[in-house]
Amino acid sequence: MIKVSIIGATGYTGSELLRYLIPHSEVELMYLTSRSHAGTKADSYYPFLKGSIDKQFSELNQEAVFGESDVVFICLPHGHSMELSAAASEYDVKIIDLGADFRLKNIDVYEQTYNVEQAAPNLLKDFVYGLPEKYRNDIKNAKYIANPGCFVTSALLGLLPAVSDALIDEQSVIIDSKTGVSGAGRSASVDKLLTELMGNFKAYNPLAHRHIPEIEQELNSSSKNAVQVQFTPHLLPAERGIFSTIYATVKDDITEADVIDSYKSAYENEPFVHVLESGELPQMKHVAGTNSCQLSVQLDERTGRLLVLSVIDNLGKGAAGQAVQNMNIMFGLPEKSGLTTIAMMP
Amino acid sequence: MIKVSIIGATGYTGSELLRYLIPHSEVELMYLTSRSHAGTKADSYYPFLKGSIDKQFSELNQEAVFGESDVVFICLPHGHSMELSAAASEYDVKIIDLGADFRLKNIDVYEQTYNVEQAAPNLLKDFVYGLPEKYRNDIKNAKYIANPGCFVTSALLGLLPAVSDALIDEQSVIIDSKTGVSGAGRSASVDKLLTELMGNFKAYNPLAHRHIPEIEQELNSSSKNAVQVQFTPHLLPAERGIFSTIYATVKDDITEADVIDSYKSAYENEPFVHVLESGELPQMKHVAGTNSCQLSVQLDERTGRLLVLSVIDNLGKGAAGQAVQNMNIMFGLPEKSGLTTIAMMP
Amino acid sequence: MIKVSIIGATGYTGSELLRYLIPHSEVELMYLTSRSHAGTKADSYYPFLKGSIDKQFSELNQEAVFGESDVVFICLPHGHSMELSAAASEYDVKIIDLGADFRLKNIDVYEQTYNVEQAAPNLLKDFVYGLPEKYRNDIKNAKYIANPGCFVTSALLGLLPAVSDALIDEQSVIIDSKTGVSGAGRSASVDKLLTELMGNFKAYNPLAHRHIPEIEQELNSSSKNAVQVQFTPHLLPAERGIFSTIYATVKDDITEADVIDSYKSAYENEPFVHVLESGELPQMKHVAGTNSCQLSVQLDERTGRLLVLSVIDNLGKGAAGQAVQNMNIMFGLPEKSGLTTIAMMP
Amino acid sequence: MIKVSIIGATGYTGSELLRYLIPHSEVELMYLTSRSHAGTKADSYYPFLKGSIDKQFSELNQEAVFGESDVVFICLPHGHSMELSAAASEYDVKIIDLGADFRLKNIDVYEQTYNVEQAAPNLLKDFVYGLPEKYRNDIKNAKYIANPGCFVTSALLGLLPAVSDALIDEQSVIIDSKTGVSGAGRSASVDKLLTELMGNFKAYNPLAHRHIPEIEQELNSSSKNAVQVQFTPHLLPAERGIFSTIYATVKDDITEADVIDSYKSAYENEPFVHVLESGELPQMKHVAGTNSCQLSVQLDERTGRLLVLSVIDNLGKGAAGQAVQNMNIMFGLPEKSGLTTIAMMP
Repeated sequence: MIKVSIIGATGYTGSELLRYLIPHSEVELMYLTSRSHAGTKADSYYPFLKGSIDKQFSELNQEAVFGESDVVFICLPHGHSMELSAAASEYDVKIIDLGADFRLKNIDVYEQTYNVEQAAPNLLKDFVYGLPEKYRNDIKNAKYIANPGCFVTSALLGLLPAVSDALIDEQSVIIDSKTGVSGAGRSASVDKLLTELMGNFKAYNPLAHRHIPEIEQELNSSSKNAVQVQFTPHLLPAERGIFSTIYATVKDDITEADVIDSYKSAYENEPFVHVLESGELPQMKHVAGTNSCQLSVQLDERTGRLLVLSVIDNLGKGAAGQAVQNMNIMFGLPEKSGLTTIAMMP
Repeated sequence: MIKVSIIGATGYTGSELLRYLIPHSEVELMYLTSRSHAGTKADSYYPFLKGSIDKQFSELNQEAVFGESDVVFICLPHGHSMELSAAASEYDVKIIDLGADFRLKNIDVYEQTYNVEQAAPNLLKDFVYGLPEKYRNDIKNAKYIANPGCFVTSALLGLLPAVSDALIDEQSVIIDSKTGVSGAGRSASVDKLLTELMGNFKAYNPLAHRHIPEIEQELNSSSKNAVQVQFTPHLLPAERGIFSTIYATVKDDITEADVIDSYKSAYENEPFVHVLESGELPQMKHVAGTNSCQLSVQLDERTGRLLVLSVIDNLGKGAAGQAVQNMNIMFGLPEKSGLTTIAMMP
Repeated sequence: MIKVSIIGATGYTGSELLRYLIPHSEVELMYLTSRSHAGTKADSYYPFLKGSIDKQFSELNQEAVFGESDVVFICLPHGHSMELSAAASEYDVKIIDLGADFRLKNIDVYEQTYNVEQAAPNLLKDFVYGLPEKYRNDIKNAKYIANPGCFVTSALLGLLPAVSDALIDEQSVIIDSKTGVSGAGRSASVDKLLTELMGNFKAYNPLAHRHIPEIEQELNSSSKNAVQVQFTPHLLPAERGIFSTIYATVKDDITEADVIDSYKSAYENEPFVHVLESGELPQMKHVAGTNSCQLSVQLDERTGRLLVLSVIDNLGKGAAGQAVQNMNIMFGLPEKSGLTTIAMMP
Repeated sequence: MIKVSIIGATGYTGSELLRYLIPHSEVELMYLTSRSHAGTKADSYYPFLKGSIDKQFSELNQEAVFGESDVVFICLPHGHSMELSAAASEYDVKIIDLGADFRLKNIDVYEQTYNVEQAAPNLLKDFVYGLPEKYRNDIKNAKYIANPGCFVTSALLGLLPAVSDALIDEQSVIIDSKTGVSGAGRSASVDKLLTELMGNFKAYNPLAHRHIPEIEQELNSSSKNAVQVQFTPHLLPAERGIFSTIYATVKDDITEADVIDSYKSAYENEPFVHVLESGELPQMKHVAGTNSCQLSVQLDERTGRLLVLSVIDNLGKGAAGQAVQNMNIMFGLPEKSGLTTIAMMP
């Protein structure tokens, strides 16, 4: 049994981790920390856990959490993992950080993007970017994982084959993403009230979203030519899920068969990425609550553009599901352990 | 033109009043006060008003607001209208209070229910309870109106004929109400986030809701025998609307024809209350955005119970619509002035 | 491994069974029949199953289905199970019928309620009513199960302790139920379109719902005195879930402690029924996608009424989850096998 | 008073027309035709009209409808207006066709796109394309109006200034549109059920949508160079509204100031098109139920692309609202007559 703790267990990524970890047959839950709810029973704070868990939230005691766990998931806003990871490095414990602190390899870019100092620069090289489809071998031996952002995962899975195989004009990429509201977290704010969002739809931070540098970093490291992306996130009146509509101009002489071959061969052995057949189109809810990604890939002969539709669950493959997948890889478990739940339809 | 001001214009009842008052042909908007948004243009704070209004929110200047307006709508949480109304009483201005401060005639009951002191007890007798279907004649000559609560309006319109005509056992009344989320106001809180409420349904304060004394006060003043109601409010995953399912045991020998006669004759001249035909059932959305109430009335021969289904819009007939109806009556305008909008379906 | 087939696999109860059965470690899926989609791959019809199943729908071949399966789930509209069950009785196969054909023990009542002839009257006595909380011992040895209706399950779990322990006036029971739209099935009709239901709420068949005889049958068989219920079903703008608000007058001298004791002791060993603590209130979504029921039980001292709030998932404990629980019991498996999924929040 | 009839009054565009026309002070409703509901009272078929209308649906009697009306709105699926318009041309009656039959000037393109023969080719030249922002002067004198498609209106209002002023590379245009479900009409189908769409999001016909030729026809007629658009429509879990995210590469030396000037001057006198200020972003619900369009216009210096966000109500400015605006212009009424409703928020 793997001894697992969660730091910051009361947000949406924390509770989603519990959904995956509680029924996971190889996991023993140790500490669930929460500053504001220490002492509260987990199933009293999260009544949907009644009958599934008998633990309470606790203050973060680093010696206990890092000393007694095999792996710790950190579910805190950016800026909080750096010091914690530095502290953890004194212990024999693996870290999977669901925040943004160690995703960006370039310290300047990180500090500019998140407006905070990189306080643990020497740890940066030890953090493997936790996208198994790109870094599975590194993840196997990693001590620390920087779990990718949700929008980023959706974009990368939809673009990596085309970029790696140099099928598209690297400057032509447009990613039009739509996310369920849980992507904006569980903090109270007027603009996330049901009354403000139901029946509604809007873009946010259309030109300057924090995820752009992360997308470009990972596309560039798989590309011969420099990649630049246009990225527009939108907020959907739904609880969860990301739907990315991706456009890119294909290079001369590239055919639809080339494109489909590229994606099919990139993902043929991937347990969680499904390239749909011609004529099938993905739906966001078909992956809700799971670690799956569904992709459709088409070439528009009329315009010469590749159209990729990519769906994931922002809390699943976009956060907690991918984190559990990374844990499975790090501990040599079957990659689907604890990740066999089927999406809820309807 | 009636000169109209709104105190507390940035909440949901305030903005709903603007929806009704801006196109109202007899209304000239004067002051829209807001403590936190003074100086902001109304259509910048509420972008859905673009093209409809050219005013900005201002601090509450009592001399200007009360001195220059013919009528002032107060849209503040309970506890704030008492002092304001006392100040207003120095001016020749009518008040329509959408809060709870002057709805309960019994001071002890008010103070216990709302846990606040009745600071303007001498004004209480001047406030007419603003339910036109019961108090139209008093409203005509009123200077001050206590606009009824939303749940209460839905319950009273569904029960008054049966109670007035002594058709039901007065102790048998059960009101099972469901409301859209706007009924809980526009303040930020986790439990009103879309992520917490969509696909969800729950009861709140099931035994001790503040509206019970108000419902009982108005039913009792129309009844020979003492009325006691069971009232359970629930929260629906919808923006607005109230659906009340009302049960009461009919007295011996009362037939369905008696019941239907009672309701039809009570409401035959009412412009906003529609008793549906046999076989028709009301739907919450059919009155959304309007000042209408739709009722179905049935007698269950098997159980001997009256079943009334009553729908209103909590922000319409349950708040701003009714307030405008009261204003129309007070100023001798046609009762439907400014209230002809048709519900949005779909 | 238990060999399992599903007859009528393309509706919502069929697909929900697949959600539970595919990851069930003791189940081997045999035949998934569908008249209209025979020959279609299951994960092509239900793309949310991609990566989880490699089977196709087939015509119903009785010899294959009944001859090769250990248990067959029938997911057809009422009226279709009678002949099928008669045919199955020639084989050594268990049946779990998710339809209504064998729920009502009184043939006249069945025929009147469903307007169809009871074509297999001699099988009726072999069908055990599949509510484990009441009939667990009978289910253990049953060959045939009549799986309870969804509204009925929600009502019975909320009322059985009070009725069995004679705590309430048996003629005073009112059940005000609200269901997600999947309860109305997957057939196309205008009144189930998103455009007609979103932001909406309505009652349907308020006085004459088919579930009343089933509720009364099961309450009466646990009661000394005759029970009569008032039952009003409503349609919620949500995909799934049932929330029942239940009212009943308590008998003289019954205290809240009596009531809570009754429910706590009735359900203390039940794996799927959770009586909430004082101060906790159930939410519909907290059990969505699961086989759980959450109940709150309160006594309103002011009115002398018991108030029970009962939530289940109509497709879970109200249909497929309960069917799998019954299967587990019939085959001597741990009752929670395949039923450990945790509700999806948000 | 203008005598107005509606052919095909029972679909969503028909009922939306009633929402606008019933309170319109210059309109007298004559005939509301419906093949399947002739004889039914309008407020019994559409209970949300109770108290607003006292008419019933009738069979289409051409002599009465065309002979007694000043203007007839045709709300039928494509393929039905051609014969009707030919018949109408014998009468002194104006036609506003909300279908697609006369939108495409090129007969071959029409026939290929809609797979139907252009049965009234000689009428084509008499139909003015009903986009007031482009063709107001022609509309004033028009006898026949081809009312634009909903997606098309959203795209054209977002692109016409940039195309007319030659600010963008005409081959670089990508329109990523999201629509509420009412855009798919009111016919029953499984894929429009609430259970299939709530919490969901998907694209449909991504490469071959029927609106592409219409968009390109109108952009090309305002452009020096040939325009080609990529257009992807998506379905949102909302009742109504269209949100279009539009991307195009700006030509060398074009600045954000140029772009904003272009849009501001194009729309400064338009009563229904609002170009938002810098820092403001449109929300779909802010125009729901109205004839308004809100636009934000930004230049992404990093990528050199113009980003336009364009919101309308698909049933408002995208159909019935625009049709009424056209009627107002044709009959010399103030353009906002009957179109002053304010969007419903929340």
